[in-house]
Amino acid sequence: VSLRVGPTQEEVRRQNLGALLRYVHLHGATSRAELTGALGLNRSTIGALTAELASAGLVEEAAPRETGRAGRPSPVVRPRSERVYAYALSIEADRLRAARIGIGAVVLDQREAPRPPDLPLEGTWPVLADLIAQLAGAVPAGAVQVGTGVAGCGLLRRANAPAHLRSGGQQAPGPESLRAELGVDSPVVVGNAADVCALAEHIRGAAVGDDNVIYLHRDVGVDAGIIVGGRRLTGAGGYAGAVGHMVVRPGGHLCGCGSRGCWETELGVPAPGTAGAGTASVVDAAASGDAAAAAMVRQFGDWLGLGVANLVNIFNPDMVIFGGALRDVYLAAAARVRSRLNATALPAARAQVKLRTPQLGADAVLIGAAELAFERLLADPLDAR
Amino acid sequence: VSLRVGPTQEEVRRQNLGALLRYVHLHGATSRAELTGALGLNRSTIGALTAELASAGLVEEAAPRETGRAGRPSPVVRPRSERVYAYALSIEADRLRAARIGIGAVVLDQREAPRPPDLPLEGTWPVLADLIAQLAGAVPAGAVQVGTGVAGCGLLRRANAPAHLRSGGQQAPGPESLRAELGVDSPVVVGNAADVCALAEHIRGAAVGDDNVIYLHRDVGVDAGIIVGGRRLTGAGGYAGAVGHMVVRPGGHLCGCGSRGCWETELGVPAPGTAGAGTASVVDAAASGDAAAAAMVRQFGDWLGLGVANLVNIFNPDMVIFGGALRDVYLAAAARVRSRLNATALPAARAQVKLRTPQLGADAVLIGAAELAFERLLADPLDAR
Repeated sequence: VSLRVGPTQEEVRRQNLGALLRYVHLHGATSRAELTGALGLNRSTIGALTAELASAGLVEEAAPRETGRAGRPSPVVRPRSERVYAYALSIEADRLRAARIGIGAVVLDQREAPRPPDLPLEGTWPVLADLIAQLAGAVPAGAVQVGTGVAGCGLLRRANAPAHLRSGGQQAPGPESLRAELGVDSPVVVGNAADVCALAEHIRGAAVGDDNVIYLHRDVGVDAGIIVGGRRLTGAGGYAGAVGHMVVRPGGHLCGCGSRGCWETELGVPAPGTAGAGTASVVDAAASGDAAAAAMVRQFGDWLGLGVANLVNIFNPDMVIFGGALRDVYLAAAARVRSRLNATALPAARAQVKLRTPQLGADAVLIGAAELAFERLLADPLDAR
Repeated sequence: VSLRVGPTQEEVRRQNLGALLRYVHLHGATSRAELTGALGLNRSTIGALTAELASAGLVEEAAPRETGRAGRPSPVVRPRSERVYAYALSIEADRLRAARIGIGAVVLDQREAPRPPDLPLEGTWPVLADLIAQLAGAVPAGAVQVGTGVAGCGLLRRANAPAHLRSGGQQAPGPESLRAELGVDSPVVVGNAADVCALAEHIRGAAVGDDNVIYLHRDVGVDAGIIVGGRRLTGAGGYAGAVGHMVVRPGGHLCGCGSRGCWETELGVPAPGTAGAGTASVVDAAASGDAAAAAMVRQFGDWLGLGVANLVNIFNPDMVIFGGALRDVYLAAAARVRSRLNATALPAARAQVKLRTPQLGADAVLIGAAELAFERLLADPLDAR
């Protein structure tokens, strides 16, 4: 229930500055004329806002793009991606990644290190700090760091939650300690990998224009990043999206969580970096005619379709995206997934849902993590730096 | 992604009028001093807004309540509940109800008719029109009808959906035809019973202050009204919340939807008005020591707990409310439900969730349906009438 009253003039100005900066962050170089239309503000307001953002070093005006049309084209406003940047970190089952990402989601630089199978969460911070130090050595003079976004699958909870492990005793440090651990001097924001991938695909990838999106991510567990009415679903304490622990076969296989018959266990798709055959090799073997592998892929498809059908009945999403190790499984078993979905979900909801793989590939998690770090700047461009 | 720019002065004024009217709609008579604090506006603005709403006949100022404190108390602003009203209709498995509800959620008048077991949806409109005609006969001169809200379980889709049946070929008429069918001369808004109950409990009942709420409703099927971050979950096409068709036992009992092992089928709780023993009689028999009935109640509790655990893992809600026929089942099997939930849901999410029964009782669905009708007025008080 919103009881929000109207904003003051000063709040309106900040809101407009944020809207303009967010627009060029999402859409890149944009002419003043296009901004006038897109934001519904008049030319002189757009001019004043652009001047303010430019003098703060956040955007710059550049020569117009060639349009081929007659008349004097208006100059374009573009985000200063090489100057204003965030660090993005991704903690994965088998590797650790760090990137420096400029406003406008330009990946400026990137480093990676393997994660040994037994390295616990607390052991990842020094490795990540080292990757950041490598990135920092290459930062040009005068560049401005706005924050650091950290994403982890099944390891780090949603942004509004105390950052600790969902199960097990490991605990990530709070934002202040994380700054020290990572050696950065701007705010650190922590997010779940599935959430930030959903965010990235929603604003820049497969799900642009769709406001109800489920991004399924198989890394350590099966998590979902869920967007509902254009907003991330976090839940009361930041624990929402644990779809891998939806029970789909009571009394089924024992799951790491202590329950039985959880979707991620019945699914049988192995986590990356675990012993035994990886998903890709099973999929390859099935494609080469191995009957046992083909049976496994069909079984993946059936369980994947059943779980997706449950989520489709519950959420009525526009789109389900199969990410992480589920991408290959979905591509190998797409017909089986759709057929199981059609047999299980209600007609109206299943007819509406698009099934897709990620469009941003392996960069999604880094781009999404950087979005977490840019959020404060976009909400209030002149105050946040 | 919000690219919304700041509002104009006129938009701010309308937003403030709406905020003030909504405040007294939710909280009843409120002093100007309290409004100043609650809305964060200064005294003169509150005075001007109140004068505008009063001259439109929406609120009135009255003598101050006795506070027992010294000093001149400020007069109270209250909604004109006896003058500004909505009709609320509830289409249930075994009965049809209509109420006239004043702004501020005051039930001014109410009528009811039984629904014969075979009466299809289209057969309910003439009965409801007759109930409305009875209510209309008692409306005082000068009263203003702002709209009609209609709620049905498993029959009518969410507000943003074309109003037709989820399964089966029956179809409710569109809003314009419904006006004619019901004989009302103000807008008709259609909602799902579970949704409007969730809304009513969220703003006036058990879940006040909780922004992540799941209201389970067993009438024709098992539906959920889901509130996420303070907003109703509707899904892409208005079909979200079909939690009764979440498969919890693949290959289980055949469900009316064509699938097998749906939660509402495995649960075994009969719909009201169906042949055979109703839920209440099973619960009563169990309480009187009937062993077979007690076993049934335990089984209800196990399946109820399992499905709730899945929803708790997916949504991490603050509260789950057991409504309709599930209320009695939950009360009889609460320990069993909680124990199954604890064995199945992840620790952090299950520790956080409160399990409750509805606080507004049988009025919840009518109060919620009326909220749908009041929404347009509250969004723009001077333009909507």
